[in-house]
Amino acid sequence: MAKSGSIPGETALIEALRRRVRPVSSRKSRLSLGMGDDCAIIQPPRGHEILVTTDFSLETIHFHRDWHSPESVGHRCLARGLSDLAAMGAQPLAAFLSLALPEELVRSTRNRPSWRDRFLAGFLALADRYDVPLAGGDTARSPRYADPSINRPVSGLVLADIVLIGSAPRGCGLLRSGAKPGDRIYVTGHLGGAAAELQQLESAPARFRRCVAPKAGDPNPHPHLFPEPRIAVGLWLKKNRRATAAIDISDGLSTDLNHICEESGLAATLDAAAIPLHPLANASAAQQKGSEALQLALNGGEDYELLFTASPSTRIPRRIAGVPITPVGHILRYKSGAPRILLTELVHGKLRKQPMQPGGWEHYK
Amino acid sequence: MAKSGSIPGETALIEALRRRVRPVSSRKSRLSLGMGDDCAIIQPPRGHEILVTTDFSLETIHFHRDWHSPESVGHRCLARGLSDLAAMGAQPLAAFLSLALPEELVRSTRNRPSWRDRFLAGFLALADRYDVPLAGGDTARSPRYADPSINRPVSGLVLADIVLIGSAPRGCGLLRSGAKPGDRIYVTGHLGGAAAELQQLESAPARFRRCVAPKAGDPNPHPHLFPEPRIAVGLWLKKNRRATAAIDISDGLSTDLNHICEESGLAATLDAAAIPLHPLANASAAQQKGSEALQLALNGGEDYELLFTASPSTRIPRRIAGVPITPVGHILRYKSGAPRILLTELVHGKLRKQPMQPGGWEHYK
Repeated sequence: MAKSGSIPGETALIEALRRRVRPVSSRKSRLSLGMGDDCAIIQPPRGHEILVTTDFSLETIHFHRDWHSPESVGHRCLARGLSDLAAMGAQPLAAFLSLALPEELVRSTRNRPSWRDRFLAGFLALADRYDVPLAGGDTARSPRYADPSINRPVSGLVLADIVLIGSAPRGCGLLRSGAKPGDRIYVTGHLGGAAAELQQLESAPARFRRCVAPKAGDPNPHPHLFPEPRIAVGLWLKKNRRATAAIDISDGLSTDLNHICEESGLAATLDAAAIPLHPLANASAAQQKGSEALQLALNGGEDYELLFTASPSTRIPRRIAGVPITPVGHILRYKSGAPRILLTELVHGKLRKQPMQPGGWEHYK
Repeated sequence: MAKSGSIPGETALIEALRRRVRPVSSRKSRLSLGMGDDCAIIQPPRGHEILVTTDFSLETIHFHRDWHSPESVGHRCLARGLSDLAAMGAQPLAAFLSLALPEELVRSTRNRPSWRDRFLAGFLALADRYDVPLAGGDTARSPRYADPSINRPVSGLVLADIVLIGSAPRGCGLLRSGAKPGDRIYVTGHLGGAAAELQQLESAPARFRRCVAPKAGDPNPHPHLFPEPRIAVGLWLKKNRRATAAIDISDGLSTDLNHICEESGLAATLDAAAIPLHPLANASAAQQKGSEALQLALNGGEDYELLFTASPSTRIPRRIAGVPITPVGHILRYKSGAPRILLTELVHGKLRKQPMQPGGWEHYK
């Protein structure tokens, strides 16, 4: 919102946000200048390094206005960025939101908030919970589609890009590349729930408006609509130096474990029976009578849980910050040409090891 | 490019960029971890604060594929962010690019680079010139338009969002809010050229492929297609503490001076005859026989020159880092209800003072 804040609708939005976001001076904030200048200014803690991540949330690619309530879109937009910080053990300092909207989503009436207002309500509710100030960004009218048949523009899409700035003590980072042969592989929470809830939405859109934060340890009732970034777990792992490598499970366990293996130059074995399945994944499997639940956990993506590795001699508690932690496999040496990941599964009473391909989220497929 | 880097086209892009961008360790870089993990890591210089700015570049809103070569779009995308850092006197540390493209713009042949390759060439040429590493971002397929008449998706638009991270010594910032009554108002370079070149493009698209960096002091031959961010001037002003307030002229002199006045709680007077008009603005005016040149300078926008204020007792050189500096007016006290800006203009041999409305770039008009 740095620069093009000159114009009626935009000025109103920025003024509304300036009021809505608590003033810079009133919080234990690292933000010394927020919206309204060319840049925002952040004071990094002494001896800390700065972490930066950006993520698109594009209508029809990352969400559907028919399936997702505006509150859910706002929540998910911010959660994606927070989850990247969590995977690096970083403390969030500030968020920047670039948001382009079709004009009709900006209009509110006395009784009915606009789509934008509800999007911001979802976004800011999560931001407040993690004490992250919205420090700036950009706004625009989203491009209208030229409809060749009637030769006039018809409508636009919601286009958002989120930037998260975090900080962490210098060095000893939680990178993808730090895994060692023999390390155990752990995951937080439950997997496959987000993909299972998405399947439900595709067949029967349910417009949950509010994020009810799950009790620590309980499976998140809306893992797709309102995923919970694992900031506290990441901070704990970083502070206590228990993990050798970490990543957030955004693309699916198979793909994200593959990232760890590739960046560390290693391989892995996963124990299918050990993977903590989300109740929604099990329910979906029960309905569809297949081995669906495991597939959702391995390839579904968007669970935003953490995957990390630790030396077998390191004690990892069963819960960190209230979140269950489950060992699911081991890191191995990599032999050129051999599969990166072997999945150990019980088939007809026999343990079977088979190569597992990364099967997560792919653009440009 | 932090997270969804799992997929064929995207992996190829990230690998190409990793090769193309000089390795982190080989440069005097503050970037200690670039692409390929959940976040990038930046080491801020000791005692510095961190500056952050983000700007959209959306097809049909900020540029047109018919008018702008891909190299120009890439250059302008980065220049917008660099210009915001320049206005705060910051040193650029890293850039993050979120880029969504229709699939057909990703394909290259042996003889013909893809649109994306040419966009990146324009982007990275400017990045190299200012020694800014491209440290990450996100990529996606851009949403396809549903065409209701034929009931199938037709095409997508280029959607980019640029994030610039910079640093500056703590405090004594170049804010919009620091102007004082009596301060002189200065601008860098020449104004109105970008709007004049845009007028040319609208009537006759000219696809300049390469940015030929202008000689210091000479008017930029392509102020719209390849604007030059005034990083060196901003650094000089900050280091020498000569300016009380600053902003980059992205929305037009009338609008951006109004920002300074509003944020500082003051008013201003502008001397029309003093405003340094770009030769392209004069040429456009000569063709169209009006007082067009001044209007282009006041309301055209996208010149990306700097506007700053300084005490009348402060010596401001005629050139800073080779760029001409021109005094164009004064800051005044603001009386409630009175106009923010008065323009002094010679009309029929008589000096006339008249209120000037901010007339720059507006979304949601």
